[in-house]
Amino acid sequence: MTTTAQPINLFEFEELAKERLPKEEYDYIAGGATDEISVDRNRRAYASWALRPRVLRDVSSLDLSTTVLGTKVNLPVLIAPCGAHKRAHPEGEIATYRAAAACGTVLTVSANSNTSFEDLAKAASGHLWVQLYPFRDKAMTEEWLQRARDAGYQAVVVTLDSQWPPKRERNIRNNYRRTRGVNYPGASTGTPRPAGRAGEGSDPAATWRDLEWIKAATDLPVLAKGIMTGEDVELCAEVGADGVIVSNHGGRHLDNTLATVEVLSEAVAAAKGKLEVYLDGGIRRGADVVKAIALGAKAVFIGRPLFWGLAVDGEKGVVRVLDILREEIEITMAKCGRPTIASIDSTTVVKAPSL
Amino acid sequence: MTTTAQPINLFEFEELAKERLPKEEYDYIAGGATDEISVDRNRRAYASWALRPRVLRDVSSLDLSTTVLGTKVNLPVLIAPCGAHKRAHPEGEIATYRAAAACGTVLTVSANSNTSFEDLAKAASGHLWVQLYPFRDKAMTEEWLQRARDAGYQAVVVTLDSQWPPKRERNIRNNYRRTRGVNYPGASTGTPRPAGRAGEGSDPAATWRDLEWIKAATDLPVLAKGIMTGEDVELCAEVGADGVIVSNHGGRHLDNTLATVEVLSEAVAAAKGKLEVYLDGGIRRGADVVKAIALGAKAVFIGRPLFWGLAVDGEKGVVRVLDILREEIEITMAKCGRPTIASIDSTTVVKAPSL
Amino acid sequence: MTTTAQPINLFEFEELAKERLPKEEYDYIAGGATDEISVDRNRRAYASWALRPRVLRDVSSLDLSTTVLGTKVNLPVLIAPCGAHKRAHPEGEIATYRAAAACGTVLTVSANSNTSFEDLAKAASGHLWVQLYPFRDKAMTEEWLQRARDAGYQAVVVTLDSQWPPKRERNIRNNYRRTRGVNYPGASTGTPRPAGRAGEGSDPAATWRDLEWIKAATDLPVLAKGIMTGEDVELCAEVGADGVIVSNHGGRHLDNTLATVEVLSEAVAAAKGKLEVYLDGGIRRGADVVKAIALGAKAVFIGRPLFWGLAVDGEKGVVRVLDILREEIEITMAKCGRPTIASIDSTTVVKAPSL
Amino acid sequence: MTTTAQPINLFEFEELAKERLPKEEYDYIAGGATDEISVDRNRRAYASWALRPRVLRDVSSLDLSTTVLGTKVNLPVLIAPCGAHKRAHPEGEIATYRAAAACGTVLTVSANSNTSFEDLAKAASGHLWVQLYPFRDKAMTEEWLQRARDAGYQAVVVTLDSQWPPKRERNIRNNYRRTRGVNYPGASTGTPRPAGRAGEGSDPAATWRDLEWIKAATDLPVLAKGIMTGEDVELCAEVGADGVIVSNHGGRHLDNTLATVEVLSEAVAAAKGKLEVYLDGGIRRGADVVKAIALGAKAVFIGRPLFWGLAVDGEKGVVRVLDILREEIEITMAKCGRPTIASIDSTTVVKAPSL
Repeated sequence: MTTTAQPINLFEFEELAKERLPKEEYDYIAGGATDEISVDRNRRAYASWALRPRVLRDVSSLDLSTTVLGTKVNLPVLIAPCGAHKRAHPEGEIATYRAAAACGTVLTVSANSNTSFEDLAKAASGHLWVQLYPFRDKAMTEEWLQRARDAGYQAVVVTLDSQWPPKRERNIRNNYRRTRGVNYPGASTGTPRPAGRAGEGSDPAATWRDLEWIKAATDLPVLAKGIMTGEDVELCAEVGADGVIVSNHGGRHLDNTLATVEVLSEAVAAAKGKLEVYLDGGIRRGADVVKAIALGAKAVFIGRPLFWGLAVDGEKGVVRVLDILREEIEITMAKCGRPTIASIDSTTVVKAPSL
Repeated sequence: MTTTAQPINLFEFEELAKERLPKEEYDYIAGGATDEISVDRNRRAYASWALRPRVLRDVSSLDLSTTVLGTKVNLPVLIAPCGAHKRAHPEGEIATYRAAAACGTVLTVSANSNTSFEDLAKAASGHLWVQLYPFRDKAMTEEWLQRARDAGYQAVVVTLDSQWPPKRERNIRNNYRRTRGVNYPGASTGTPRPAGRAGEGSDPAATWRDLEWIKAATDLPVLAKGIMTGEDVELCAEVGADGVIVSNHGGRHLDNTLATVEVLSEAVAAAKGKLEVYLDGGIRRGADVVKAIALGAKAVFIGRPLFWGLAVDGEKGVVRVLDILREEIEITMAKCGRPTIASIDSTTVVKAPSL
Repeated sequence: MTTTAQPINLFEFEELAKERLPKEEYDYIAGGATDEISVDRNRRAYASWALRPRVLRDVSSLDLSTTVLGTKVNLPVLIAPCGAHKRAHPEGEIATYRAAAACGTVLTVSANSNTSFEDLAKAASGHLWVQLYPFRDKAMTEEWLQRARDAGYQAVVVTLDSQWPPKRERNIRNNYRRTRGVNYPGASTGTPRPAGRAGEGSDPAATWRDLEWIKAATDLPVLAKGIMTGEDVELCAEVGADGVIVSNHGGRHLDNTLATVEVLSEAVAAAKGKLEVYLDGGIRRGADVVKAIALGAKAVFIGRPLFWGLAVDGEKGVVRVLDILREEIEITMAKCGRPTIASIDSTTVVKAPSL
Repeated sequence: MTTTAQPINLFEFEELAKERLPKEEYDYIAGGATDEISVDRNRRAYASWALRPRVLRDVSSLDLSTTVLGTKVNLPVLIAPCGAHKRAHPEGEIATYRAAAACGTVLTVSANSNTSFEDLAKAASGHLWVQLYPFRDKAMTEEWLQRARDAGYQAVVVTLDSQWPPKRERNIRNNYRRTRGVNYPGASTGTPRPAGRAGEGSDPAATWRDLEWIKAATDLPVLAKGIMTGEDVELCAEVGADGVIVSNHGGRHLDNTLATVEVLSEAVAAAKGKLEVYLDGGIRRGADVVKAIALGAKAVFIGRPLFWGLAVDGEKGVVRVLDILREEIEITMAKCGRPTIASIDSTTVVKAPSL
């Protein structure tokens, strides 16, 4: 990051990262399922809502902080669980965690991280959440939860949309292989496996009873990730989940879904205030964050942009990605006359007809 | 199929087939009427419905089988009647039938097949349906039906949208000529005719009485193909048809229609459960199949993709086309939490606004 | 038209005509006002309606004839008043009239024709209508109407949308000049004038009283051309007009209007059956004609395509243009199960959502 | 402007200006915030309304004059406050003012003008309005208002959407710097500053009380600029503003808003006739002006086109820009049968569906 201009937005970060990453790694990160309709829609759907500027509301002091599952963060942008950060930078999750801690936000550590829960926890003093799948192996799950608990992790994110492998055509064409996360018992990074199987160990036979079991197995708050319908939000509430992440896994699992921001209102309505609703998918501008919050999200997660940050400049790159979002959120809040996150209500946005 | 990569989806099958087929044959298969608006719309309209992912519903065991006009098939994808398979592969319908039988689905044999009903029936032990038009010649029709019955065919598909020749501009420009099917009395493959006349022998004066007569002339189930309105579904029910195929002949007859998937709900509502509703047109992904079933189709038919399979690798190519669809249907069912065809209900999809 | 392939549709006619015409003539004919939004919309709006195919309705005998202002024509396609046919072929209106007569339809003779009313009337034995504007000069108007009457013209078309000159940017850039029609008193073809002034002599101060006066000044039926609102249809009915032509002058006068086919239903509703409703604008396919009739038009007019026919092959070219439309109308009627013009009702079409 | 053809519309003016201006100046003028979605939407949204042509309404005498905040203007197009006209022509605001005076319209003088209020007032005898921001410094504001009052300015425009700096990526990439307006106390044109800070001195802590204070501090009419919601129109009425300008600052401050013409009806409804409603943003054709008036605007403002006029031909260029708009407004009024501004009512337009 010494000879070229500093990227000034997340699109430029991606462009630069694309130049620097091996094609198959870029494709793995950027790509999605089959025709990548959902990847594209996740991004484009934000344009379906317009911001409503407000004036003369004293925006001299802006406060972007909010509380997520009881943890205070400095901005409403969290880092989603994404496997193997070392594919973008040799420091991997260590760099990401230090960036997240510096910016005062949460890193959700992927089940497929290149760094162990314990090693990561030592890298900085920030907020860590832990991902898991509804694994077949209950004993492994209990150990997994206990290790994270012991290491100081503050919440559990259960990824539910990976019970069946997706069809990612870029990976098939690239004959892409990936390694198993180090947190799995007996994991070895030396043996790459075909890329098809996301959700390593995720049980296709899992049911809501399994999520209920996870909730009972830990005293940490539990967030259900991969929810795209009001029905499933209600079921999450029934089994006692503390929140949901409206997510289609960045369009990486099932193609042809609505964008996440398009189902957000349905999810929020179904939550009836009983659980917190988060969102990921397609966030690239501060305006997207404000729109999601206006539509009822507690906060949002970013996934791919963290890899662009890592690829461009490691820890500093991730910090810059978060700083850009923060600056853009500030502009949006100020110009919509919303000095706090709590003041971003539904009147902040309006449907924008397709022209 | 030895030196190039195996196509991984039906679009790649078409690309490869286009390279291998003579231009005028590719154009004949891929093309449609006048501006090809309906060809295009058939495909694009699937994007008007989004899938609704569901989680934690035990998808460890998926069953794609269903029953079509009393015949059990292994997947809800049947092969539509398409003339002269030898234009894509020297084994013609024999190759297609063996592929269909291997995959456990139905081949509907075109009136314009290159192989006789009898010869085809000997090629494998699968399911065969026979196509006819509302021919002027009743005696020929009776003999046609009897021959198919004797050869073990299990249902009759009457193509109703070909009573008047279409305007297919690619064929006009290519001066394309085609041969008469061998099943016609006195047919000779040696005398190519202008391509305009689809529906060879189809009577422009035919009325609903003619379909009623066909139904009475056979004890096989009768499927009316080429239905695009609720009114005609009701008339099909009145004359005793066992089912309808919602079809605009792949956009090859009348241009400027809605897509078949767009009129499916109207057809299903008009059927009132009295007859089975099928659909063809634009199916290229497993997701399309699931959407059609969610909107009320019993199963779908594919047409052009069978030629792409034949052109790429004969019988094996058609098997691969069907396998790809099967794999994609599995992914879609699993990720929508629908382990059986019967479980794919209307809540599986939602209208996706144009962005 | 001897060395190249015969155009097979009206788009190919235009392409070929574009090659043959001087650029400024092509631009004059093809172009429209300012951004040509209405030119484009006139054409594209037909795609907003889909055809509804119907089957088994005995289409063995199709009848395209209909009656327009009391005159029987062989097909529901008339020729709009267009100035100076000699810009496309040396025989000018003579060629067009012979073609119209051969095809059994009406030629509306432009006020700016290159051939006098009388000379034209001698060229064939078909149907001629005469165009005029609400001229300032009443005596000239009376003489104009009488001359046409004497020459056997059967109806009067009053063009109402040309009371103010348009802004046609192609003509401005080309410094295009045109000649005055020979029917004007003292007209001379030797003195080209700037192109801005369409509606030569059309009175900007004209009101509905002037149309009432024209109606009283002739016993021929009077058709009001250039109507785009229900309000003006009602006013036409009040002053006794026999019909209206829903027209935005092919997008050549005011840009940013709806397409003519988009306001057709409003016009038909306002007509309340008291006057006949016609349409021009964007007709290029037989399907367009059928859609317009299904939406309530008595018949349609073509303008630009007549020049493409003239430029390609004079009289024969215009015949071919009309024949192509006739063939395409036949296909559309047959496949929609509508053997007569009268049978083309509103259920023949349905709104096609934008995908 | 001697060797090339005279631009015939505002798009051509922009093309020519782009050739003549330094890239960073063109980018500063043409560009907008972040993705420039609002810049684009402002322009494209006009196509969402169609004009409804009317005939036979006596348009022989057109009157484009109207009254704005008590001042009679010759056409309903005013010049928006835009900083530093010298960036496009050495005569700067002097040239613009002479053009505005010649055309009988208002120049709103930017807070960041290159010419002082007093010098400008001496340049011609037309109409001048003065811009200010809700400055932190009340004493400066009072002096500012008094100076403008003394120099004969007739109204005050308070720009409200600039309380927080925008993100304009073209300027960041160009490292664009601009100079402070000469009207600021102690202003020096010698020290360029970073471009980010629009709304120099605009107080982020300002509230509606500050606008109320401004209204009380002057006896000139006060227009609130940068209003995009009905709520803020109501608040403007409460604090006694005389009018509002519906504006998103040409898409230069907050991206992702609706187009100004899209919120116009909401603003007009909220105004309840208590204050005048103006609009700026995307006006490039006379038809746009007529549409805005039909939707309730008293008049419109142009911004960027004034720079294109200046860059092409200084004062004459601005006159030509205004003349082109006037000619196009005349055509539109004539062809819609609206001889006066007052006669342009809501039936002049209709929503045009996206095709």
